Amino acid sequence: MILAELTELIRSRAMSPIEHVSQTLDALSRDPFNAVVATNAEAALAAARELTEDLAHDAWRGPLHGVAIGVKDLIDVQGLPTRCGSNVLAEAGPADVDSAVVAQLRAAGAIVVAKLHTHEFAYGPTGDVAAQGPCRNPHDPSRITGGSSSGSAAAVAAGYVPLALGTDTGCSVRVPAALCGVVGLKPAFGALPTAGVFPLSESLDHVGLIAADARSAATVWELLAPGPPADARDSAQDLAGLVVGLPTDGHWRPIDPEIATSVAATAAALESLGARLVEVTTPDVAQLVRDYSTIVSAEAHTTHARWLATRPEDYQEITAERLTHAGRVTAGEYIEARRSWKRVDAAIRAGLSSIDVLLVPTAPLRATLIGETHIDDVAVRPALLSMCQPFNMLGFPALSIPGPVSDGGLPVGVQLVGTNVSERRLLAIAAALGG
Amino acid sequence: MILAELTELIRSRAMSPIEHVSQTLDALSRDPFNAVVATNAEAALAAARELTEDLAHDAWRGPLHGVAIGVKDLIDVQGLPTRCGSNVLAEAGPADVDSAVVAQLRAAGAIVVAKLHTHEFAYGPTGDVAAQGPCRNPHDPSRITGGSSSGSAAAVAAGYVPLALGTDTGCSVRVPAALCGVVGLKPAFGALPTAGVFPLSESLDHVGLIAADARSAATVWELLAPGPPADARDSAQDLAGLVVGLPTDGHWRPIDPEIATSVAATAAALESLGARLVEVTTPDVAQLVRDYSTIVSAEAHTTHARWLATRPEDYQEITAERLTHAGRVTAGEYIEARRSWKRVDAAIRAGLSSIDVLLVPTAPLRATLIGETHIDDVAVRPALLSMCQPFNMLGFPALSIPGPVSDGGLPVGVQLVGTNVSERRLLAIAAALGG
Repeated sequence: MILAELTELIRSRAMSPIEHVSQTLDALSRDPFNAVVATNAEAALAAARELTEDLAHDAWRGPLHGVAIGVKDLIDVQGLPTRCGSNVLAEAGPADVDSAVVAQLRAAGAIVVAKLHTHEFAYGPTGDVAAQGPCRNPHDPSRITGGSSSGSAAAVAAGYVPLALGTDTGCSVRVPAALCGVVGLKPAFGALPTAGVFPLSESLDHVGLIAADARSAATVWELLAPGPPADARDSAQDLAGLVVGLPTDGHWRPIDPEIATSVAATAAALESLGARLVEVTTPDVAQLVRDYSTIVSAEAHTTHARWLATRPEDYQEITAERLTHAGRVTAGEYIEARRSWKRVDAAIRAGLSSIDVLLVPTAPLRATLIGETHIDDVAVRPALLSMCQPFNMLGFPALSIPGPVSDGGLPVGVQLVGTNVSERRLLAIAAALGG
Repeated sequence: MILAELTELIRSRAMSPIEHVSQTLDALSRDPFNAVVATNAEAALAAARELTEDLAHDAWRGPLHGVAIGVKDLIDVQGLPTRCGSNVLAEAGPADVDSAVVAQLRAAGAIVVAKLHTHEFAYGPTGDVAAQGPCRNPHDPSRITGGSSSGSAAAVAAGYVPLALGTDTGCSVRVPAALCGVVGLKPAFGALPTAGVFPLSESLDHVGLIAADARSAATVWELLAPGPPADARDSAQDLAGLVVGLPTDGHWRPIDPEIATSVAATAAALESLGARLVEVTTPDVAQLVRDYSTIVSAEAHTTHARWLATRPEDYQEITAERLTHAGRVTAGEYIEARRSWKRVDAAIRAGLSSIDVLLVPTAPLRATLIGETHIDDVAVRPALLSMCQPFNMLGFPALSIPGPVSDGGLPVGVQLVGTNVSERRLLAIAAALGG
């Protein structure tokens, strides 16, 4: 069920928070996709009772009143452990306080019903490496969800919750959203607080949202980051004047031809709504990807160094291997990567200064088989990251929405990047596209 | 001559820019303090002719019209090499363009007459390590000027120029200003652009000003960073309501007792002007100093790594030794230092939130003998940095002014730190103190 419908059912008292949460917990208990790592039944039902009671006194808190949400198990929820998909934290105690974003959503009436699957420590884009085993794509359970916010995308795609929180350091909200056929918003860097979120890379970590459609994400975005009163442009269905950049660099060419078709169809739809399409280039984007890797490697290794030295067996094998390799980055390489980042950022930004939105694929592939590391000569992991990472580095807000699929197959994600527009405007554009 | 007098002489045509620049070049040619590493005679005289001509047509550009200034030889001046006090850059060609701050001052009518001595690559607070040999303190040529903006402080103290540009990564404007008895302003981090300045540590580099008095520095500051129209408070001689914090932590206790006397006298003067004195603490400031060292070491080594590997003999021996040692910082140590920095910054900032200005010594020592590395058990280099570094880390604007000297000896610097006030306000407070 999408958020607006649920909001209306609850607000009109056609369905009480207690009924909604009970039904949700019931569905979660039968989850075949391994999206759920812990439910929060007792606390959720207590909150639902309180919010049901509030409605009886006409105290409606807004569109999230009594709405069940899920939270990636990298993000603190008071009273529940944060296990980050790892046996390293198998014995973690309950979090003392909510993370900043969870606290905001709870204050708005949301009810956290579950902690959701994450790729171990968010260190991977596939969602099939975790202490709990792989998360499975609701569109085809033999396939990955994408990650690292694997459970958040799966839980929304499966219809368990209308909204889930995720994190995105390199693609981790957008890629699972794309592969599971839902909407994923990575806001601008720093737009949402990361307090109470287990870090992967403090230079690049973002908290983000996964929802079934853009309108739901927009509703939640307004609660989390209320801006000035929306101007007409923010909600216009007419996209007249919007300048949409289509990068011609090879970097953005998908491996799966259906994705190119979907992006082209989206571009045509934007044009038919009044947008102007222009070709652009993103020079040195490959350098940005290399710098990303150096920076994330060094920061992640620094966080994990002690555990990795003392308890390597508590990590999944591939995670331990990758973190060990990450530890080879020297201070000089890290600092040079930051300097290079700054230079490339300035160059790309200058080149895109007259573009409102960039339209690119979210990923060059659709969901691969669980455990599949290569498709022909293409390594899946870097491929999944490649079209999202640049926007963590550039800090632009970026939104993955389901694109048209002409072959009847798995979902495709197309990415709208706000080079010169806000999250709100991106969400409005997506809504205008029918999302 | 202080800037206001010179401005008036030029504006009133009592002295032409040509006369002023000629006299300045003449004085520079006899410099016994080794403050000058290169003069810019031809270009300076050409500019002076042009600015003299402009005055004949009543085109006065403002208080720097036709005024001779000096520039630390770490900062690009178009047409002159930037040699950074090092034989590594002995063959450097002329800079193609002015650094951003030099360009601003030239546009305001200033005339660059000389590049001034710097501690080699700005990597030291003493000013006695450079390809050109030590810079000498005009108050006692057997003693250091302090550094790294050694020549800038010496040239102003010697009266060659009313204003010199310096840089300050850990103390490098304020300590030489203190040791030479002049005024040194390190603005807030990022307040002045560092484009065209040879980096020491991009995380901590600041461009700053050295002038004979606070009023001159204030005049130049308004040209470089024009703010909103000054409010009454910015220029008030009456300091009623100003809250001045005096840290009680041992970190701030000077080695030279005359410095404690001078700070106490300055506190009393502030109180007599209406300020309220309160005791404060700066917990974990020692950690901030350790993190400073890790960060600057790693960033400086990264910049120099290639030269250090291929041309170690072109560095002064102590510089090569220190840079080699700096190369031992690992990526993990660097990243941990940045994380610690962020934590301590937040804690100290919270503790000082109700203080307008912090009053501390600029350095715990007065000018030491050239080449002297220890005084009893105290290592001179870290001691000179210790009371300034924290404000590069915290990013607050900080101003060193000459404090009262009761023993008739060498100059003493006292430091006013704008924990919650602007550079402009700091300069006005210094002016109220008679500076």
